[in-house]
Amino acid sequence: MRHLIEKVRKQQPLIHNITNQVVMNFTANGLYAVGAAPVMAHAKEEVEEMAQMASSLVLNIGTLTKEQIDAMILAGKAANQAGVPVVLDPVGVGATTFRTNSAKRILKEVNVTCIRGNAGEIANLAGVETEVRGVDGSSDTDIQQLANLAFKTLQVPLVITGEEDVVIDRDTRVSVSNGHPLLTKVTGTGCLLSAVIAAFLAVSDNVVEAATDALSYYGVAAENAADQQGFPGSFQIAFLDQLSEVDGETVNKKKQLTRSS
Amino acid sequence: MRHLIEKVRKQQPLIHNITNQVVMNFTANGLYAVGAAPVMAHAKEEVEEMAQMASSLVLNIGTLTKEQIDAMILAGKAANQAGVPVVLDPVGVGATTFRTNSAKRILKEVNVTCIRGNAGEIANLAGVETEVRGVDGSSDTDIQQLANLAFKTLQVPLVITGEEDVVIDRDTRVSVSNGHPLLTKVTGTGCLLSAVIAAFLAVSDNVVEAATDALSYYGVAAENAADQQGFPGSFQIAFLDQLSEVDGETVNKKKQLTRSS
Amino acid sequence: MRHLIEKVRKQQPLIHNITNQVVMNFTANGLYAVGAAPVMAHAKEEVEEMAQMASSLVLNIGTLTKEQIDAMILAGKAANQAGVPVVLDPVGVGATTFRTNSAKRILKEVNVTCIRGNAGEIANLAGVETEVRGVDGSSDTDIQQLANLAFKTLQVPLVITGEEDVVIDRDTRVSVSNGHPLLTKVTGTGCLLSAVIAAFLAVSDNVVEAATDALSYYGVAAENAADQQGFPGSFQIAFLDQLSEVDGETVNKKKQLTRSS
Repeated sequence: MRHLIEKVRKQQPLIHNITNQVVMNFTANGLYAVGAAPVMAHAKEEVEEMAQMASSLVLNIGTLTKEQIDAMILAGKAANQAGVPVVLDPVGVGATTFRTNSAKRILKEVNVTCIRGNAGEIANLAGVETEVRGVDGSSDTDIQQLANLAFKTLQVPLVITGEEDVVIDRDTRVSVSNGHPLLTKVTGTGCLLSAVIAAFLAVSDNVVEAATDALSYYGVAAENAADQQGFPGSFQIAFLDQLSEVDGETVNKKKQLTRSS
Repeated sequence: MRHLIEKVRKQQPLIHNITNQVVMNFTANGLYAVGAAPVMAHAKEEVEEMAQMASSLVLNIGTLTKEQIDAMILAGKAANQAGVPVVLDPVGVGATTFRTNSAKRILKEVNVTCIRGNAGEIANLAGVETEVRGVDGSSDTDIQQLANLAFKTLQVPLVITGEEDVVIDRDTRVSVSNGHPLLTKVTGTGCLLSAVIAAFLAVSDNVVEAATDALSYYGVAAENAADQQGFPGSFQIAFLDQLSEVDGETVNKKKQLTRSS
Repeated sequence: MRHLIEKVRKQQPLIHNITNQVVMNFTANGLYAVGAAPVMAHAKEEVEEMAQMASSLVLNIGTLTKEQIDAMILAGKAANQAGVPVVLDPVGVGATTFRTNSAKRILKEVNVTCIRGNAGEIANLAGVETEVRGVDGSSDTDIQQLANLAFKTLQVPLVITGEEDVVIDRDTRVSVSNGHPLLTKVTGTGCLLSAVIAAFLAVSDNVVEAATDALSYYGVAAENAADQQGFPGSFQIAFLDQLSEVDGETVNKKKQLTRSS
């Protein structure tokens, strides 16, 4: 089967990002490299109009304010009305009460298509942090257990990223083992991944398929970049290059997936 | 005649940017590479003071808010009083009502020295979108026609960028054919160009000359960078290097201009 | 004695940045390269909680607003209560009244561990600008004199950066001569340095030692990067790489310090 990256590049979906100030530039450049078209807009006066003309919407709370969360909810509801997929990136949930409550407020008011976070963020969002041990230095079993528990609570398709990434929906669970540790040394690689997942959701109604293809594509690009550059500054640039260069055939060859149900 | 880039590098004008959050870093680094000095400030409490000490002011509505537009108008009026040139970059005008109205509000309250946008933005700003066909996959004729119609309505010198760039003022029209498609794969290259035009306006009272020299310099730097790097991550870095490296003599040799009146 | 960079890399301190929008991405990537962990958060609802869980707090007024200064003061007071070191970067003080007053307000309400700025900023903050001549094209003597006068007024450990950097506390004054002029061609290198000093303060109670080690490490990384790349785009990337690569032994060999008391 053809990898969805080819479809993204053909359709060039417009991705509306309400995201944090740290990663805006990297996210926009990353989406261009993927073959999508980024737009950033967060004023309450325009987010509904922008979200409804977009192919996907990303809500990322990395540098949240009260006003921004209000705008996210306006945008999210407008996206829901228009059938535009919504990805939530609950950056730093658990670190402060305001973050946790804001993410939960979004989930309550907006129908989110998919949540992308690391194990700690997902555990905190689902309120299962006390039931899962060793989230940080977590074993594979822990991540699978966390995925099951968190999905049970949140009832939203989840992408939990770490050394191994897990995609979970009602009937499917896929693990993706591609990627490289240097991704953790560049700020915004998680945030950009959420935007890339949004781009893949714009070209496929199957959330698990879209997220899995986004993960394998993203991971293989990182592996290729790490083959070329071993330090974080140069790696960041090589990674943007690879996001642009790597094709679906290469990703299909190198992808490492494990499906269970 | 010596290219104005030499004068910019000698005078190192201070460029006050009220710009969008996506491109702030790239704009500041780009202006440093050009040889100018960037300053970013958007609080209503200080924008007037900052604009009046600057050599040029850039108003870019890419991630506008109501408060930011208010600050832009304060800064713009202060710049007008002090004789500081003002460049407007109407990012995304036409995409939402709020953007279109905000750009028009700025034009009504501030005397803008020059507007820089792509064909779609300029057409929407001038309200001539229905009269020009094929703006996106536009032919040269369309762009020239758009320039004439938009200038007639707006009565402000315009820089319309695309495959071919057009500078238009009351009595002059210049087309610049330098540049490279990779510029469209890096976020903020249009926004940085607006800031670079502002830097050139700081060293010349002739708007058409300043904009034309800014365009040829910028385009040649992009061509040189694309000779070195073919992917967007590396191209972005090579482009910053070339903005710093390319000299006026080289630009004069490589520039491709067509003048009409 | 082992250089403190080794301790920073071992402890990976969490640095809470309330900083300007121009440098957020570069600061985060720089802190990762150093071996620290960045977090950016500026909402008044969460800054106290975040500051108290951090190892250090950075207050940088580069793109200040009234709301952001309020948040900085909340965060600063919370940091003070929790014994978390606070670095103030008074970007652009002297350029506008709002900047100068805001920095002074922070100093009045928050116990700042260390201030990092260039000669002009420190002189303006201390109100000694009329007593020091030639701050911009300043001689070594001027900088030393400025350091003495400014410390006398401000009574806070100071790091004054320029061609030669000076660290001054009650009983000690150290000059550091490492670094490279290309640092002045990349936006945010001063701001990142303030964050790096914050990371070093997180692993040492001795402010002069922490700041001096941060300066020598930062300067040697810049020298190494400039050996590899001569233009600002590529230099920026090489510098991030060197922040990650350079070790304490190398810094100890190359550092150029002059102590006086």
